Amino acid sequence: MADLIIKGGTVVNATGTAEADVVIDGERISALLAPGVADSIGIDGNASRVIDATGKYVIPGGIDAHTHMQLPFGGTQASDTFETGTTAAAWGGTTSIIDFAVQKYGERVEDGLGHWHELADGNCAIDYGFHQIIGGVDEESLKAMETLVDEGITSYKLFMAYPGVFYSDDAQILRAMQKARERGLLTMMHAENGPAIDVLAAQLAESGKTAPYFHGIARAWQMEEEATHRAIMLSDLTEAPLYIVHMSAKQAVEQVAWARDKGKNVFGETCPQYLYLSLEKQLGARSEEWGDFEGAKWVCSTPLRSEEEGHLEAMWQGLRTNDLQMVSTDHCPFCMKDQKELGRNDFRAIPNGIGSIEHRVDLLYQGVVDGRISLPRWVELISTTPARMFGLYGRKGVIQPGADADIVVYDPNGHTSIGVGKTHHMNMDHSAWEGFEIDGHVDVTISRGTVLVEDGRFTGTKGHGRFLKRDLTQYLV
Amino acid sequence: MADLIIKGGTVVNATGTAEADVVIDGERISALLAPGVADSIGIDGNASRVIDATGKYVIPGGIDAHTHMQLPFGGTQASDTFETGTTAAAWGGTTSIIDFAVQKYGERVEDGLGHWHELADGNCAIDYGFHQIIGGVDEESLKAMETLVDEGITSYKLFMAYPGVFYSDDAQILRAMQKARERGLLTMMHAENGPAIDVLAAQLAESGKTAPYFHGIARAWQMEEEATHRAIMLSDLTEAPLYIVHMSAKQAVEQVAWARDKGKNVFGETCPQYLYLSLEKQLGARSEEWGDFEGAKWVCSTPLRSEEEGHLEAMWQGLRTNDLQMVSTDHCPFCMKDQKELGRNDFRAIPNGIGSIEHRVDLLYQGVVDGRISLPRWVELISTTPARMFGLYGRKGVIQPGADADIVVYDPNGHTSIGVGKTHHMNMDHSAWEGFEIDGHVDVTISRGTVLVEDGRFTGTKGHGRFLKRDLTQYLV
Amino acid sequence: MADLIIKGGTVVNATGTAEADVVIDGERISALLAPGVADSIGIDGNASRVIDATGKYVIPGGIDAHTHMQLPFGGTQASDTFETGTTAAAWGGTTSIIDFAVQKYGERVEDGLGHWHELADGNCAIDYGFHQIIGGVDEESLKAMETLVDEGITSYKLFMAYPGVFYSDDAQILRAMQKARERGLLTMMHAENGPAIDVLAAQLAESGKTAPYFHGIARAWQMEEEATHRAIMLSDLTEAPLYIVHMSAKQAVEQVAWARDKGKNVFGETCPQYLYLSLEKQLGARSEEWGDFEGAKWVCSTPLRSEEEGHLEAMWQGLRTNDLQMVSTDHCPFCMKDQKELGRNDFRAIPNGIGSIEHRVDLLYQGVVDGRISLPRWVELISTTPARMFGLYGRKGVIQPGADADIVVYDPNGHTSIGVGKTHHMNMDHSAWEGFEIDGHVDVTISRGTVLVEDGRFTGTKGHGRFLKRDLTQYLV
Amino acid sequence: MADLIIKGGTVVNATGTAEADVVIDGERISALLAPGVADSIGIDGNASRVIDATGKYVIPGGIDAHTHMQLPFGGTQASDTFETGTTAAAWGGTTSIIDFAVQKYGERVEDGLGHWHELADGNCAIDYGFHQIIGGVDEESLKAMETLVDEGITSYKLFMAYPGVFYSDDAQILRAMQKARERGLLTMMHAENGPAIDVLAAQLAESGKTAPYFHGIARAWQMEEEATHRAIMLSDLTEAPLYIVHMSAKQAVEQVAWARDKGKNVFGETCPQYLYLSLEKQLGARSEEWGDFEGAKWVCSTPLRSEEEGHLEAMWQGLRTNDLQMVSTDHCPFCMKDQKELGRNDFRAIPNGIGSIEHRVDLLYQGVVDGRISLPRWVELISTTPARMFGLYGRKGVIQPGADADIVVYDPNGHTSIGVGKTHHMNMDHSAWEGFEIDGHVDVTISRGTVLVEDGRFTGTKGHGRFLKRDLTQYLV
Repeated sequence: MADLIIKGGTVVNATGTAEADVVIDGERISALLAPGVADSIGIDGNASRVIDATGKYVIPGGIDAHTHMQLPFGGTQASDTFETGTTAAAWGGTTSIIDFAVQKYGERVEDGLGHWHELADGNCAIDYGFHQIIGGVDEESLKAMETLVDEGITSYKLFMAYPGVFYSDDAQILRAMQKARERGLLTMMHAENGPAIDVLAAQLAESGKTAPYFHGIARAWQMEEEATHRAIMLSDLTEAPLYIVHMSAKQAVEQVAWARDKGKNVFGETCPQYLYLSLEKQLGARSEEWGDFEGAKWVCSTPLRSEEEGHLEAMWQGLRTNDLQMVSTDHCPFCMKDQKELGRNDFRAIPNGIGSIEHRVDLLYQGVVDGRISLPRWVELISTTPARMFGLYGRKGVIQPGADADIVVYDPNGHTSIGVGKTHHMNMDHSAWEGFEIDGHVDVTISRGTVLVEDGRFTGTKGHGRFLKRDLTQYLV
Repeated sequence: MADLIIKGGTVVNATGTAEADVVIDGERISALLAPGVADSIGIDGNASRVIDATGKYVIPGGIDAHTHMQLPFGGTQASDTFETGTTAAAWGGTTSIIDFAVQKYGERVEDGLGHWHELADGNCAIDYGFHQIIGGVDEESLKAMETLVDEGITSYKLFMAYPGVFYSDDAQILRAMQKARERGLLTMMHAENGPAIDVLAAQLAESGKTAPYFHGIARAWQMEEEATHRAIMLSDLTEAPLYIVHMSAKQAVEQVAWARDKGKNVFGETCPQYLYLSLEKQLGARSEEWGDFEGAKWVCSTPLRSEEEGHLEAMWQGLRTNDLQMVSTDHCPFCMKDQKELGRNDFRAIPNGIGSIEHRVDLLYQGVVDGRISLPRWVELISTTPARMFGLYGRKGVIQPGADADIVVYDPNGHTSIGVGKTHHMNMDHSAWEGFEIDGHVDVTISRGTVLVEDGRFTGTKGHGRFLKRDLTQYLV
Repeated sequence: MADLIIKGGTVVNATGTAEADVVIDGERISALLAPGVADSIGIDGNASRVIDATGKYVIPGGIDAHTHMQLPFGGTQASDTFETGTTAAAWGGTTSIIDFAVQKYGERVEDGLGHWHELADGNCAIDYGFHQIIGGVDEESLKAMETLVDEGITSYKLFMAYPGVFYSDDAQILRAMQKARERGLLTMMHAENGPAIDVLAAQLAESGKTAPYFHGIARAWQMEEEATHRAIMLSDLTEAPLYIVHMSAKQAVEQVAWARDKGKNVFGETCPQYLYLSLEKQLGARSEEWGDFEGAKWVCSTPLRSEEEGHLEAMWQGLRTNDLQMVSTDHCPFCMKDQKELGRNDFRAIPNGIGSIEHRVDLLYQGVVDGRISLPRWVELISTTPARMFGLYGRKGVIQPGADADIVVYDPNGHTSIGVGKTHHMNMDHSAWEGFEIDGHVDVTISRGTVLVEDGRFTGTKGHGRFLKRDLTQYLV
Repeated sequence: MADLIIKGGTVVNATGTAEADVVIDGERISALLAPGVADSIGIDGNASRVIDATGKYVIPGGIDAHTHMQLPFGGTQASDTFETGTTAAAWGGTTSIIDFAVQKYGERVEDGLGHWHELADGNCAIDYGFHQIIGGVDEESLKAMETLVDEGITSYKLFMAYPGVFYSDDAQILRAMQKARERGLLTMMHAENGPAIDVLAAQLAESGKTAPYFHGIARAWQMEEEATHRAIMLSDLTEAPLYIVHMSAKQAVEQVAWARDKGKNVFGETCPQYLYLSLEKQLGARSEEWGDFEGAKWVCSTPLRSEEEGHLEAMWQGLRTNDLQMVSTDHCPFCMKDQKELGRNDFRAIPNGIGSIEHRVDLLYQGVVDGRISLPRWVELISTTPARMFGLYGRKGVIQPGADADIVVYDPNGHTSIGVGKTHHMNMDHSAWEGFEIDGHVDVTISRGTVLVEDGRFTGTKGHGRFLKRDLTQYLV
C-alpha cells in the first residue's frame, strides 16, 4: 500500500520544519502524515520498506542548476561524464542537475542540443535538464530559440566573456533578450567584460606574470561589476528577466541588490567556492608538488576573490539578504595532470573550472552550523529556489504530496570529511575541497522513490536519471 | 478515522501549490494526500465529513498580526469587541489575530496584560495572541519585560508618536531594545516623530485647517521616514531586531530597504489602506452627509498618503521586493457617530483608526488578480510570514501535517462585494472599503478543525478561540 | 598707461562678486582696482579707452569646450566654418572654444590633427583649442597619443556610440585609458551603447517608425546610463580621470553622482538643449512647413529626453549639486535644407546636431534669473570650470591680473530675443532656440584686449583667434 | 599712494593661483597688479611698505567659524580668553573667528549675546563674529531670533546632545528651523543623539569603565549618524538650510552626501582632530604622567573615531568630494590641571574640548603636501567657503580689490614644529598636537592692513579686532 515510508524525521521545507512521515508510492510522494497517523491508518505495516529518520532531517533532494559535464574547453574537456558526475552528485545529496547544452558560433542550436541529449541519455544516475548556451546570436539561433520552450528548455545562457568562443556583444544580447522576453525564456548571463579582461590578461602574461594567481588579477572585480550592471540595463530595456551566474564580486552583488530594490526581475547565483575559497589562500597557493602552479586547481571564472577585500563575506550576506537566491556549483572539473597542466606556462591556457557537485549540499549545511544561514534557508538555497527559478517546482524542490520522491535524509549528528581518498567520487585527480570537514552527513539519497545512496553504498544505476522538461520560471515577481 | 477531509483543492503554501487532499483529525492536520490516495487507503469513506474544494484554493488561515480590539483612544474606545472583531475576522478568512495588550505610563505592565486577557478570554471566535505595548519604559516595566517570553508574549511595541500617551523618547527606546535583545523579544515600532508632528498639527489647527484632510498634512512623510531611520539606528546599536508597523511612506520603506541591504534584521509591515486608499481620494473626501468631514472615516496613523507622490505604488513594490514582509490591518474601528464625530471641529480629536479585519485576505487576493503579487506570495504575506515573524510557524501559517487545522477554502471564481449591507460584519456604522469589489471569495473558514464560516453562515462560537503562547520569532537571518 | 579700462562694473568670478575696475594692457589684464583707485593713481585719464560697465556684470569670457565646426557627418558636414562659428560665439559672449580634431579608423591621428589646424588657422574670431577624437584605437594611434600633450592637446575623446564610424570597443577603451593615465590626458567619453541603440533604431525604422521623434526612442536612457556606468568602471580600473560629454539622462547623472560620492575623478557635462528642450515638445514637434519632420531640427545625440520623466529637471539639479560641472554646447549645426532633409525618410540619416554656440551664455544666465543657479555659479559653469577642466585656468576663466583680457560685459537689465532674424549669426537656416527670450544681454565681448562685439556690431576679425596650447587638467581632486 | 604692497608672491584664491602684487590702502585691498605693473605706474616707490613674498603663497586670512572662547562647561570654562585665543589665531594665520554667544534654558537670548559682546569687545587681536546658541527654544527665544539678522548674527546653533544643558527636542528644533527659514538664518546643528548617548555613558561608568577612552565608546557613531539624518529630515520639512558642525563619523558624512545628492542645502564641517587623531591612538593613550587618563587631552564631542573603521580617511574623502565644505576647529581648550582632571574618576566629568585655533591653517596645508587636497582647495576650505557660508564673502575669504586686507604670507619652504615650547601660544598646559610637523610656515599675518605677526614676533594688539556684522549665507544653491 506504500512502497516506502520515511519515518520519524523532521521534514524541512523552505519556510520551516514539520515532524512528519513521508509516504512514497512508486516515484512520487503520496502522503505526508503527522506522527502516529501511519500506524493508525495501517499504512505502516503494509509498507514495502521503512527508513527510520529519527533525529534526522528529511529534505527535498538538492538541485544543482549549473553543471558542465564533458564540456569542451581549451582543447580538453571537463573530466566528469554524465555518469561519473551524476553519480558523485547522488553521493552528495543532489538528485537533479541542469547542465548546459552548447551552441558555439557557427554551429546550429539544434545540433548542440541534440548532441547534449546523446551525451546524457541513458548515462545519468539522477534526473537532468538542460539550459541552452547560445554562443552565436544570429538569425538562425534566434529562430531556434523559439522552439526551446516546447522542448522543456526554458532558460538559456549568454556570455559577456570569452570573445571568439562564446562571447555575445551588446547588440546580440539585446536581440536574444527580446526573443527571450517574447517566449518566456530566462536569460542566464556570464557577466564579465571579456574584451577588457583579455587585454589585462595578455598584458600580465606578456610581462611574465604567468602563474595561476594572475588569472584572478586579470579578471578584476570591476569587470564583473561592470558586466553585471550592463546586463541589468539590457534586461531593464527589454523587460527580460535576468539571472546572473556564478557571482563572486561584492560590488557586482551590490548591483543586483540595486536592481532588486527597484523591483526588477534580476537574480543572482553564487557557488560554494566563492563562499569559502579565496584569491589569497587558494589561487595563490604553493605546494612542493606543484610550486606556484598549485593555484591552478582553483582557476575558474569568475575567479576566486580577495577575502581581505570582503568579497567572501559579501557572498554570505547576499545569501542572507536574498540578493543572491541560489547556490549552484558551476561544476566543471579538470584534472591537474594533462588538463590544468596545459597552462603551466601561461595561466590563460589553464582550463577554467572547479568540481564541487558532490559537496554543495554539505558545504551549505556547514553554513547552518556556523550560524550564517537558517535551516529552512539552506533548503531554499539548494533545492526550493532552484526548482522555482527553473520551472521544476511541485515536481522537485519541496516535500509535498504529488512531488517526485527526490529526498535526502540528512544527519545533523553525522560528519563528512572531504578529500580524495575520503568522500570524493568525482572524476578528478585532486579535490578543490581537500581537508574540508562538515558537521553533518548525507545518509540516504532517494530519486523518484529509488534509493541511490545508503549506508555508504551507491545503489543507483546510470540509466535511472530522466530528462526534465521544465516549465517556465515560477519565481518572477 | 478522519474528522474532516478537504478534497480536490489546490493547496497553496508560501513557495507554491500542490494538488492535495487535507485530512484533519481533531484540531490538527493529520495528513496531506496526493489525489486518489484517500480513496485507496480508505480514509475517504470513513471521514466524518468531506468538503469538496475542487477548483478552489486551500490556504492556511489568515493571521492578522496587528489589531486593536476595544482600544481606549481619545476618550472613546475601538468599537469592535473581541467577540465582534474576531467574528468578522472569521468571515474574512482570518483565523488568528495578535492584539496589543496596553500598558500606559504610570500603569503596571502586568495589570495591562491581565486586563487584556480578561477582555479576550472566552470571547474570541478565533485564536488570539498578544503583543505588549510598553507605553512607559522605566525600571519597573523593563523588569516586567523579562517575564513576557515565558507568558508567550514574544514581541512588544513602542511608540515614537503620541507624546504624553504612549510615547517613548530615545533613551527609553534604547533601554527597551537592550532588554529585548537580551530576552529575544521582537521590537515593534510605531515610527513617526510625534513631537514634531504635534507642532505641525497644532499650527494647522490654530490656523483654521481643522478638516480631516489636514491630519494627513500634519503627519508628513518626512516624519515617518525620520523615525524609521532613527529606529533602525537604535536597532543597529543594540542589535535588537526591529519590526516597523503600518508603513505608508515610500521614503520610509526606502530606509527599511537600505537597512535590509546591509543584512540587518529590520522588517516592515504595511496595511491594506496604504495599498488602496489615498490622501487625495479618501482623506480629502467630501459627501453630502458629512461635508469635508467625510474624510474622518479614513483618519488613521500613519496617515493615508498621496497617490500622486507614488506612495501607494511604493507599498506594492515593497511587497514584491520583500522590503515589506507582511500586511496586517491595524484594525482599530470607530463609528462616525459619537466617535469620529468627536473631532468634527479639530482633526486632532478624531479617534485614529480604520476597520479592515474582515477584508484583508480578500483585498490582498485582489493583488493577485491584478497581477501585482503571485499566488504563493499572497499566502506568504497574509499567513506564512506572520506566523514565522511572530513565533507561530508550524502550528499556524502553513498547510502541513501536525499544523493546526486553520484552513480557508478560497474560491477564485467567487466574488465579494464589500460594504455595509453586504459582507460587512464589523461593529462599525460605515465601511472604509464601501464599494470595493473582489474577484474571489472566502467560502469556508476552519479554525482548529471547526468550521466557522460556510455557505454564507457563521457557525462558530465566541468562546472557541484560545490564547496563543508564541515562540520567539522564527524569521531572523 | 593702460589700453583699456572697464569701469564701474561688478566683477563676477566663480566664488562671488567684487566692485572693481579692470585694467587691460595689451592682451592681458594688468590690474584690478577698487573703485576710485584708478583716478587716484592717474591711470584713468591716461587710458586709451574706458568702457563704462556701471550696473553691469564683468565676467570672464565664455569657454565652450565642446564644438564641432565643419564636422563631416553622415555624408555632409556641420554648416558652421571656424569663421562663422567663432563669430557667432563672440556675439554670444564666448571667447574661447575647444573643438574636436578628428581621427577615424584607418586614418593617422597626426593627419587628422593637422587637417584641423589647417581648417582653423587664420579663420577664427576667438581663441581655440583642440581635443583629439580617437576613432580607431590601435598601436599607431596609441603611439600618437603620447605626443599630444606636447602639442597642447591634453584631452581626447572616445565614442561608445557610432559603430563603424567612431566607435571603440571596451578593449580599445581600456588601452586608451591606460595610455591617458600614463600621459595625463583627460578622457572624454560619448557614453551611449551604440551597438544596442543601432539594433533598436533599425527595428523602429523597419517597422515604419521613421520620424525624428523615434531618434529619441531608439536612443533609450537605459543605454546612456549603461555606457556611463561602463565608462566609470573602466576609469576606476585604469585610474584615468573621466569626463562624460553631453549628458541628458537623469539616471546617467545618478551614475556620475555615485562615482563622485566615492571620490572618483569623474565629471559630467550637459548642454543647453538638455536643460530646456524635450522629447515631447521639440523632438516630437510638427509644423505646417515640415510636418512631423519638424523635429529633425532637434535631432542630436544624446537625444532630447522626456520632460515628464524628469530628465530636464535632473540636469538643473545636477548643475546645482555639482554632479554636472559644466555646460558646453556640443555645437554641431546643420541646415534643414539639404542637410537635415537627408533623413526625411529615415531618422537614422538625419545629421546629428544642434547649433547653440551663440546662446549658451545667455541661456545659462536665464537660469540665474529663474532662480535655478546663483550668479557666481553661472560664471563657474560657463567659464571657470571649463578653464580648470581643460588646462586653461589663469589665462582664461577668471578675471585676475595676468589673465588674458577675455571679458564680457553683461547687462542684467538688457534683453535678448533669440531667433533667425533676431540675434542669430550661426550659419543655419533655422534656430533650435527660435522664440526664446533672455532677461539679459551680452553688451561687449573682448578677446585678449580686443573688442569683438560692441553696440550691436561685430568689430572682430577672422584671424584674431589663436590656437591654445593647453596644460593638463587643473580640476582633479 | 599705497600703505603696503605684497610683492612677488603667488596669490592663491579658491579656484586657482595668480602671480600678482597686492596693494593695500588703509584697511582694504585697493589693487591687484600683474608683475611689473606696480613699478610702471609708480605705486611701488611710493608705498609706505613693501613685503617681499617671492616664492611664497599670498592667501586670504584664515576664518575659523567655530570657536568657544571662555565657554562655561562642566563647572569650569574654556581656558582661552578672547585675547589669548585670538592672539594664538593670528600666530597661526587666522584673521577672523566666529564664536558662539550662549543662551541656555531659562536665560534671555539678548542677555547671552550682550554678555558675549562684553567678553570680546576690546579684547580681540583679530576680527570676530558671533553665532547664537539657542539652548532653550521657547516663545521668548523664538521672538529673540527675529532680530538676530539685524544685529549681524545670521546663524544660530542647536544641540541634539547635552540634555539638560543645551539640548533641544525635535519639537523645539522644528520650531526654531521654521523661524530660521522665515528670517534667513542658517541653522547649525550639533548632531548627536544626546539622550541615547547619556544612557550608554551612564552604563559604562556604572560598570567601572571610567577612563577617557570610554567617552569615545559611549558616543557611538550610530548616534551621530542618526542625529545627522534626523536634522536633515527636519531641514527638509521646514526648507531651512542646515549646517552640521564638527562631523567625525563616516556614516554621518554619508547622510550629508545623500542629502546633497538630492540637491538639499545641507552642509558639513569637520575639524583637524577628526582628520588626524583617532580613538585608538589618542583617546586611548597612556603616559607615565597621566596613566590611562592621558586620553583626557582629546576628550571632545563628537569624539575622536576609530581609524581602523575608516572614519579619518572618510573625512579626507568628504573634503575632496565637497560633502564636507569646511574645516573649523571647534576650539574649546581646557588645561589638564584643574580642568580635564575634574573627570579623573569619570569620563563624563571631563570638560569636552580640544584647542587647535593656532594650527588649523598649517594642519590643512599639510594635506596639500601629502597630496590629499589641492592648493586652491586648501584656501577654499580654510577661508573662502567659511566666508561664503557665513555671509562675509567680499570682505573676507578672497584676495580681491575692495576686500579687507586680511592676508597671510605662507612659505611652502618653511617648517613648523607644533608643541608646547615650540609654536604654541594658546592658554593650555599641553597641546593636542604635540609633535606634529608641518612642511610650511605662516610668515606674515595681516588683518585689515595691520601686520599682526611677522619675523616670528606678534605685533598686534588686543583691541584691534572688530565685531563682524555678517550678511546672510552666500552659499545656498
